[in-house]
Amino acid sequence: MQIDLNSDLGESFGPWTLGDDAAILRLVSSANVACGFHAGDPTTIRGTCTAAAEAGVAVGAHVAYRDLAGFGRRFLDVEVHHLVDDLVYQVGALQALAAASGTTVRYVKPHGALYNAVVTHREQARAVVTAVREVGPDLPLVALPGSVVAEEAEAVGLRVVLEAFADRAYAPDGTLVPRREPGAVLHDPELVAARVVRLATEGTVEAVEGSVLEVAVESVCVHGDTPGAVQVATAVRSALAAAGVRVASFL
Amino acid sequence: MQIDLNSDLGESFGPWTLGDDAAILRLVSSANVACGFHAGDPTTIRGTCTAAAEAGVAVGAHVAYRDLAGFGRRFLDVEVHHLVDDLVYQVGALQALAAASGTTVRYVKPHGALYNAVVTHREQARAVVTAVREVGPDLPLVALPGSVVAEEAEAVGLRVVLEAFADRAYAPDGTLVPRREPGAVLHDPELVAARVVRLATEGTVEAVEGSVLEVAVESVCVHGDTPGAVQVATAVRSALAAAGVRVASFL
Amino acid sequence: MQIDLNSDLGESFGPWTLGDDAAILRLVSSANVACGFHAGDPTTIRGTCTAAAEAGVAVGAHVAYRDLAGFGRRFLDVEVHHLVDDLVYQVGALQALAAASGTTVRYVKPHGALYNAVVTHREQARAVVTAVREVGPDLPLVALPGSVVAEEAEAVGLRVVLEAFADRAYAPDGTLVPRREPGAVLHDPELVAARVVRLATEGTVEAVEGSVLEVAVESVCVHGDTPGAVQVATAVRSALAAAGVRVASFL
Amino acid sequence: MQIDLNSDLGESFGPWTLGDDAAILRLVSSANVACGFHAGDPTTIRGTCTAAAEAGVAVGAHVAYRDLAGFGRRFLDVEVHHLVDDLVYQVGALQALAAASGTTVRYVKPHGALYNAVVTHREQARAVVTAVREVGPDLPLVALPGSVVAEEAEAVGLRVVLEAFADRAYAPDGTLVPRREPGAVLHDPELVAARVVRLATEGTVEAVEGSVLEVAVESVCVHGDTPGAVQVATAVRSALAAAGVRVASFL
Repeated sequence: MQIDLNSDLGESFGPWTLGDDAAILRLVSSANVACGFHAGDPTTIRGTCTAAAEAGVAVGAHVAYRDLAGFGRRFLDVEVHHLVDDLVYQVGALQALAAASGTTVRYVKPHGALYNAVVTHREQARAVVTAVREVGPDLPLVALPGSVVAEEAEAVGLRVVLEAFADRAYAPDGTLVPRREPGAVLHDPELVAARVVRLATEGTVEAVEGSVLEVAVESVCVHGDTPGAVQVATAVRSALAAAGVRVASFL
Repeated sequence: MQIDLNSDLGESFGPWTLGDDAAILRLVSSANVACGFHAGDPTTIRGTCTAAAEAGVAVGAHVAYRDLAGFGRRFLDVEVHHLVDDLVYQVGALQALAAASGTTVRYVKPHGALYNAVVTHREQARAVVTAVREVGPDLPLVALPGSVVAEEAEAVGLRVVLEAFADRAYAPDGTLVPRREPGAVLHDPELVAARVVRLATEGTVEAVEGSVLEVAVESVCVHGDTPGAVQVATAVRSALAAAGVRVASFL
Repeated sequence: MQIDLNSDLGESFGPWTLGDDAAILRLVSSANVACGFHAGDPTTIRGTCTAAAEAGVAVGAHVAYRDLAGFGRRFLDVEVHHLVDDLVYQVGALQALAAASGTTVRYVKPHGALYNAVVTHREQARAVVTAVREVGPDLPLVALPGSVVAEEAEAVGLRVVLEAFADRAYAPDGTLVPRREPGAVLHDPELVAARVVRLATEGTVEAVEGSVLEVAVESVCVHGDTPGAVQVATAVRSALAAAGVRVASFL
Repeated sequence: MQIDLNSDLGESFGPWTLGDDAAILRLVSSANVACGFHAGDPTTIRGTCTAAAEAGVAVGAHVAYRDLAGFGRRFLDVEVHHLVDDLVYQVGALQALAAASGTTVRYVKPHGALYNAVVTHREQARAVVTAVREVGPDLPLVALPGSVVAEEAEAVGLRVVLEAFADRAYAPDGTLVPRREPGAVLHDPELVAARVVRLATEGTVEAVEGSVLEVAVESVCVHGDTPGAVQVATAVRSALAAAGVRVASFL
């Protein structure tokens, strides 16, 4: 048995640092590296790629809306052809810095509000799919199960890697409980770890009212920038090891 | 006989347009395409690459300081390792958009204040050279004859393409007369055209006090964003044709 | 009889110019000056304020989303408290540059996608109202008749200046025909001029299917950045003069 | 006896936090608040102004080059008239947010590379002086003793507040030892505290080779964003209290 653990990294910018990338890189198998539009100046990006290469962690392009002040967490009603070009630009920039760091971009994952938008926003979902096809038709796209972007990507033959969220509560219909609702985010490392083990070994997760959902995923996202993030990721990694689950990239 | 004509293109940004790229692309053989740091949003960049590909014009990366408000025309005392990464980022972004447009990045040319800085600033010159080596050791670097960046590039085996400026006055020592001095920029299309023909056929240019300088260059820069730019470039192109000089990329 | 004519000005940025501000300032009575978030670098803003002061044109703060690449024309789902602070920041910046130019900020008008959003988006409308109250409770707010922002502003005692659009088609229900629909924007200078005269003298406008709408407005917006903008504004100004309507600020 | 303690605050941006503003505000009498060009989004600025008002700390405008990625720490060769307008813009933005927070901008202090530039760069120094005169001729300017900006400000009748640096080593000629040299920055809280007491009570500081310099200053800058900053500031404050020196704004 094996599972991929992915985490958002390279989200520092200029004088500002965010997250403990060094610690997280020892725990995950895939690094979603910011590409400069929501976070990540070129030197940060390069340092993250170098560290990921040294840690044997796969680098993915964490593409986003052009919104540094909002960290890409605010929906932006950008026209489709602009969004395509914005994404190609970001992936290309990351590819060059990854190459200079001795590694390559292995997958694409939309960030923040763009990630959320393409769960339902068909036009923007198609923009993401178009961008991936243009910049690297062999690059897998990491997406939420049941999302429009997953559907659109599969329709044109892109490889889709479905992912679950280690620390998020699930509604009975399999969607994530919105962050603004109480209990949406789980903070107990042992609880989160147990859920990830169950995801990896049984392909199931318990929803908020107690029902058991089937969630077939190849990857689980662990956060790197929240308080206690490293502690949670460490617990997840240990629990997986104890359960005999190998942590490895989906590649 | 042949000569390359290069021009700065793709310098629009968002709602703002600059220059008549379509007209210039019919006249030159190399397009220095902005990479987003001094100008050039991704959609502009892509459109320029597509138009260049259709026109059979070579695409080069016109890399710059991160200074949109100043159009990259102000010296920025950026640390060398940051500058390297900023440049790799820009070239990579352009490479991806060029590829999506059916073409490739064929050379690198620093823009504006960075171009001027690396004539004498050894640290920044080395940063440019390092960036080119990392992102594409086979990419020629377009530079001013006698510049530190040309010297540094040749020292490590990069191909250097020396260029002259069609509409700039030369001092007796072969340097350009600073823009702030009267007569620094030539506006008469026929005069500029005659100088370019002389550069291409004899490898010489007349300096401000009348002496004749030897200027061995493979390329001549014609401006695209000044009033009368298209008229000047048209005169240059016609005069070259009349003199039997072929306009072609240096590649 | 009198009417105010307002136009969007100061929308150049760095090396990029937009619109013919000098020409428009001779024709309008109110200048909606960009504040740096969608357009308008400080030197552009200041030059526009100086020119407005010389022309006797009132300066208003044309506040926007933080979206330079999108020119503030894309909806941004910014949190209310951030939006309030973004708007206060913009108005303050303009106030200082206006003061340095010998004039003052006399009103506020949201720009682009923010203008459109606050027609219906109550939270963002309240943010606009809150910002105006904080930065200048005596400043009128220019708004669309029937908009949520007008309603919210009046509810707290702000002065609201309703405006019509000179060159836009109206639907039978009094809303503007969306730009993407054919016939949404009128280009014939004489037609536009006749409509503005009718708005100023009768308070009515003809809707697309021929019905006559009552539109009680104190101001009419004429565009400054479209092809033919100066010609249209000139025709409007002449027609108003011929009809004996004085063009003057609503202040 | 009294002395002002000033510190750089409000330097967070969007998702990124920098420094422990709450702790520092309990220790200083003047807050140099970032204005958005090198750091400080509007909500951060406002929160800092509100906290400063509550703590009875004076708010000053910490104006900078437009260089978010470089945190304003890189010299930018901006033209004088652009620099003036950039600074007026920043002060105005801060004034509006300060007013909305129940306080006002009481002084101006250049940040980072601009601060260093105007020690010797006469044109940029004059730009700073011009901007202060335009935006608030009664606002004191905080400057380094012996700097060109202090000289230019005094020449036109601006009030200049000279400052020393608590944690910086001084050369025998009274200039600061450059940061890149060993021993340039002092980290021992008790040593720094003793130096500040001596500055406040005797107006002297010991230079690196042991000579005693006369340094007549009204304010001392304590850093807020370095490791141990709060500890150092706490030691300074305690030592001043023990020596009977009151910490109060220079206003």
